[in-house]
Amino acid sequence: MKAHTEYLWFNTKRRKELVHITDSVEAAVEKSGVKEGFALVSAMHITAAVFVNDYEEGLWSDIMEWAEKVAPEKPDYRHHRTGETNADAHLKRLLLGHQVLLPITGGKLDLGPWEKVFYAEFDGQRRKRVIVKIMGE
Amino acid sequence: MKAHTEYLWFNTKRRKELVHITDSVEAAVEKSGVKEGFALVSAMHITAAVFVNDYEEGLWSDIMEWAEKVAPEKPDYRHHRTGETNADAHLKRLLLGHQVLLPITGGKLDLGPWEKVFYAEFDGQRRKRVIVKIMGE
Amino acid sequence: MKAHTEYLWFNTKRRKELVHITDSVEAAVEKSGVKEGFALVSAMHITAAVFVNDYEEGLWSDIMEWAEKVAPEKPDYRHHRTGETNADAHLKRLLLGHQVLLPITGGKLDLGPWEKVFYAEFDGQRRKRVIVKIMGE
Repeated sequence: MKAHTEYLWFNTKRRKELVHITDSVEAAVEKSGVKEGFALVSAMHITAAVFVNDYEEGLWSDIMEWAEKVAPEKPDYRHHRTGETNADAHLKRLLLGHQVLLPITGGKLDLGPWEKVFYAEFDGQRRKRVIVKIMGE
Repeated sequence: MKAHTEYLWFNTKRRKELVHITDSVEAAVEKSGVKEGFALVSAMHITAAVFVNDYEEGLWSDIMEWAEKVAPEKPDYRHHRTGETNADAHLKRLLLGHQVLLPITGGKLDLGPWEKVFYAEFDGQRRKRVIVKIMGE
Repeated sequence: MKAHTEYLWFNTKRRKELVHITDSVEAAVEKSGVKEGFALVSAMHITAAVFVNDYEEGLWSDIMEWAEKVAPEKPDYRHHRTGETNADAHLKRLLLGHQVLLPITGGKLDLGPWEKVFYAEFDGQRRKRVIVKIMGE
């Protein structure tokens, strides 16, 4: 069994931003030498998400607007009594999910034709990490 | 380590439909010969979901209605400027989740007494796939 | 390859309650002897969730209130025609997710600085289980 671990770092310009990371994950799979296995991609900060969806800019706006509607920014979250202002970002991570597990077959990510991997930042403008952990043979 | 990969194909009659797939996943586990491991079940199309919940028809209606309420069909998504009409289906996949990882213990799916696996189609009436990838010993 | 399986049991005093379980999962990882691998933590009852988020009481209230707002308790779910009263709990499990996969690196859970693991009970006051399944080397 082989295991390979990498950390992807992000420091987005805007507070909320989507980053396309399929290529970085593919590169990690290649480095790992794993032919059959799983790649876990998981946001290590609790105000960010990771998901698999379409590479289409209009949809990216739809996703960010939808997340805002379902888990809105507002001042009166209890979490804000600690001095924080990002409770909505914690909820958005729960809504979209903070991790995906990608199958590896024949040494490649075994994704559907339009499946692309995204990092969703909801409280950025500082250095944050995603773990990519690959296991298999 | 053993790895086994299968693809389940769906072509639902209705645009939105739930399909119970626990038996298909069980059959894949048996074929794999894996006694201790994990089975990933992941929708390869970005307008479908996979989840684990109750085998109860009333609840299935509740789930579909709830998904419609939280991520409604409507004409004015930006994704629709591409000619698509299914932005809600992309959002519903994010809401319900597009994959589950099922534990295998003693050669069987190690699920709770009421845990059943479902494929949730939100833009069907065409051929679409789910990957079942099993790893273990 | 090593595999280790444990079941955590819960019987919460209140119907809806969050339980912090990072320490129990860490203990299972130590027992497993796995140095590089994955730990699956998955709620085996279909009215409970498992998620990774902040250890902060104000936020816990925010999460529970938010789940109530997005997937509210109400009498008229179709699932209730079976005599059940917990359809909202099934939906809350779907909203928050019923499982997480935790990376293990160097024999420890490889989590971000604020990542903690929680069991979210939405229909408690009875014995319910979470599986912790660890695989790796």
